[in-house]
Amino acid sequence: MGNKKSVIVIKIGGNIIDDPKELQQFLTYFSKIEGYKILVHGGGKSATKMAQSIGLVPQMIDGRRITDAPMLDVVVMIYAGQINKNIVAQLQAHNTNAMGFSGADGNLIQSDKRNHPTIDYGFVGDVKSVNTPLLETLLSSRIVPVFCAITHDKNGQLLNTNADTIASELAIALSEVFEVTLNYCFEKPGVLFDSEDNSSVILNMNAELYSKLKVEKAIHSGMIPKLDNCFNSLSKGVQKIRIGHHSMLQNDDTICTTIQL
Amino acid sequence: MGNKKSVIVIKIGGNIIDDPKELQQFLTYFSKIEGYKILVHGGGKSATKMAQSIGLVPQMIDGRRITDAPMLDVVVMIYAGQINKNIVAQLQAHNTNAMGFSGADGNLIQSDKRNHPTIDYGFVGDVKSVNTPLLETLLSSRIVPVFCAITHDKNGQLLNTNADTIASELAIALSEVFEVTLNYCFEKPGVLFDSEDNSSVILNMNAELYSKLKVEKAIHSGMIPKLDNCFNSLSKGVQKIRIGHHSMLQNDDTICTTIQL
Repeated sequence: MGNKKSVIVIKIGGNIIDDPKELQQFLTYFSKIEGYKILVHGGGKSATKMAQSIGLVPQMIDGRRITDAPMLDVVVMIYAGQINKNIVAQLQAHNTNAMGFSGADGNLIQSDKRNHPTIDYGFVGDVKSVNTPLLETLLSSRIVPVFCAITHDKNGQLLNTNADTIASELAIALSEVFEVTLNYCFEKPGVLFDSEDNSSVILNMNAELYSKLKVEKAIHSGMIPKLDNCFNSLSKGVQKIRIGHHSMLQNDDTICTTIQL
Repeated sequence: MGNKKSVIVIKIGGNIIDDPKELQQFLTYFSKIEGYKILVHGGGKSATKMAQSIGLVPQMIDGRRITDAPMLDVVVMIYAGQINKNIVAQLQAHNTNAMGFSGADGNLIQSDKRNHPTIDYGFVGDVKSVNTPLLETLLSSRIVPVFCAITHDKNGQLLNTNADTIASELAIALSEVFEVTLNYCFEKPGVLFDSEDNSSVILNMNAELYSKLKVEKAIHSGMIPKLDNCFNSLSKGVQKIRIGHHSMLQNDDTICTTIQL
């Protein structure tokens, strides 16, 4: 009854995680955002560094990284332990009542172990369901959820899961009860017409423009799955998506790419 | 306004954590306990193993382990990451809606960095406050909190904290609103008259008997801080404390030591 409440979902990637000064600045901005908010963080380079220092050799098949059991142990300890708890502690210092989660916690995000016809990705999960009622309860208790990119299969198995996907699946699930803005923060100021020119930000993107730019090959490889994912989220109820540098969170006038249907 | 609700706080130590079969059996028992419950887990040997495998040398002063910055990183990743998330995932498989926490999460347990006149313990925290209202909210949402032995100072610093102390401080804080039974699970069937004889369990202990056994030196070194801690918890409102093997959770007839004022 009445208007939907709003929630902002923000995903930060490795470039912020790996740079303590950038991370600190981001967390300062993030803590000042009013209303309901959720943070999803990627992993950065520390899992790879840890894997190397204990003598693990990265397993690759067809150029894709495989999460075998020893690597899963490493990503769980780094993502859910070191990175997640340090972010939570820093947000607490900013009086933001952050609470860190993997998908196993409160069964918040359940996944299926990926079952690919030709590649065994190992312990990698594809999101199956989000515990939206519990997330609502947490948000309404003024908790700020901070998710790492680990989920579980509800049968006792933790699974490594893509952080962009976690952000979009959370946004889609929450759009049933909230107006959701999804924000992807990365090292560039937005989606670029010319990937070499940071001043060529596409301010507004819709499905029509996206099709056109794909045909013209102005948008290429790395950006395509990210944008496909965005349009999928929008088609499933997410209100608005922004892609850009995290300074867009501080100031509404900051240039970034806004994507709407 | 009616009777107080009950909550059971259970602490498990390294002997269970380090033995996958024991842990699995414990988690099966734990998942069957009805009503409000909280689990606190220690660390076991994996933090030491990890520290060794990345080349850290344990820092000791006067026979006491010091948590320097690299060791803090290790205990955070192992306790809050690997151990905590695997326990949570296993409990989820038993349909127990576990949620894993450090003290930083939701500011559930705030500590002061230990300030000792002669020994610098490093990043070690002494519990200062428990966020009882949030714990109540979580419990009444049918969440089962699972705490690792990491807290924070609310200024962005994570701190290594004794798991026994976390269990007792949670129990004391919750005793304001709940009837609390605190359970310490370890490798012995209880507090023993003769430490060499597992059949010599002291079934009931009170302050008078404790004083007598200390004078007689039937209770010695390792058990004294544990029991002092127990009587402190009881004097601060905890209803009942049990010490014994985790099988005491399965069956009320199992022999263990019950401590009451």
